[in-house]
Amino acid sequence: MQFASSHRLDGGVLEREFTLGEIPGIVWTPGSASAPAPLILLGHPGGLRTMYPRLVARARHSATNGFAAATIELPGSGDRPPSADAEQARADLHRALAAGESVDDEIVDRLILPLVDKSVPEWQSALDALLSLPEIGGPVGYSGGVISIGIRLAVVEPRIAAAGLFAGSFVPRAMFDEARQVTIPVHVLLQWDDEGNDRQAALDLFDAFGSQEKTLNANMGGHTGVPQSAADAADRFFVRHLR
Amino acid sequence: MQFASSHRLDGGVLEREFTLGEIPGIVWTPGSASAPAPLILLGHPGGLRTMYPRLVARARHSATNGFAAATIELPGSGDRPPSADAEQARADLHRALAAGESVDDEIVDRLILPLVDKSVPEWQSALDALLSLPEIGGPVGYSGGVISIGIRLAVVEPRIAAAGLFAGSFVPRAMFDEARQVTIPVHVLLQWDDEGNDRQAALDLFDAFGSQEKTLNANMGGHTGVPQSAADAADRFFVRHLR
Repeated sequence: MQFASSHRLDGGVLEREFTLGEIPGIVWTPGSASAPAPLILLGHPGGLRTMYPRLVARARHSATNGFAAATIELPGSGDRPPSADAEQARADLHRALAAGESVDDEIVDRLILPLVDKSVPEWQSALDALLSLPEIGGPVGYSGGVISIGIRLAVVEPRIAAAGLFAGSFVPRAMFDEARQVTIPVHVLLQWDDEGNDRQAALDLFDAFGSQEKTLNANMGGHTGVPQSAADAADRFFVRHLR
Repeated sequence: MQFASSHRLDGGVLEREFTLGEIPGIVWTPGSASAPAPLILLGHPGGLRTMYPRLVARARHSATNGFAAATIELPGSGDRPPSADAEQARADLHRALAAGESVDDEIVDRLILPLVDKSVPEWQSALDALLSLPEIGGPVGYSGGVISIGIRLAVVEPRIAAAGLFAGSFVPRAMFDEARQVTIPVHVLLQWDDEGNDRQAALDLFDAFGSQEKTLNANMGGHTGVPQSAADAADRFFVRHLR
């Protein structure tokens, strides 16, 4: 893990850009932590520069609860080399949505499954590096999308203690079987009229999670219109499980 | 409104039993209110004596947020004269559930619609009396079940500013049309594996609400297993809308 830049935000949160091999990332640590902080991995749909304003807002919220936060770029997104297969799958998805057609499982599989397979080991490597920082201690939560990445991490990565998952992307059928293997506490955020999502699939996915403690928090406002009260509820979920 | 008893609970909340004509009720007011308090009407399935432990717990929570709380007995329940038609409908419902059959709309209509028609004017009369108390000012929220009573009140009673509804009872099809007319903020609590409820109907009902601001909070634990975090989320909903 190589740090590329370091500066303090208003309020004292330390923001550091880093690279992990070829993978860019950002880590935020609270300004006034007295002990190694729990960590929240901030999931996103890819494109750190575009997503930065929302990511830093989420990191600031995490810091007010005493949590560190970190994220890495997804394979094929942002400054990383594009994937021709993923671009083709995304184009096929957009074409189906624009035509008002239902989205073929096959398109969703091509878009999501390779992304999960490639990114999850990267998040795990990032976790190795982040947990070696003296400011960060754990436990660790995963927060956000891509929900299939969060599901796979919740199954294979025992250091993840709780997952706040944003049901805002299409989910391959294969991930439903993985969801049944999830046993950690899960807080699922669903935008009821999300234009880039299948509501019934999200409800089926929530039903599939094997966790004894799972909450579905559904709200109005479209894909990007998550209300502040829902963000606050997700924060409180992590406070209950990472403290 | 005739007060029948009055005493202070631990923590200073004033609990007063009252009668409103033939209808028994209870009102709780915060011990240390400096101004007339907002009011939360506590809905329940009927039977004040049986429900008392849970009602007083909810009233205490409301009081910590500075809210008064009140409830009245439902027609046909507790010490009020039983309704032969309602008893028959309840027996038919239990027979269908025990036999593992789907519950006929006709049974649900017989059980719920007369209850809504009779109880809603009673809640409105109680509201007249409660809002005339100097300790209570409003705004007013409705919290709990019977969800069909909450829906009707949200439509016909302009003094109700927000509704935290427990989707824990069967809902007549006619109430879906009324739900479309609801425009106040709505927070719907659903126990995902509720044995006394139809999950898909609850999801359809949430979809039907006309409110721009509506939240579905679904959790595990069966009908009576609402987790504390969900109760807290409902409390915060009222804090956002009644303060």
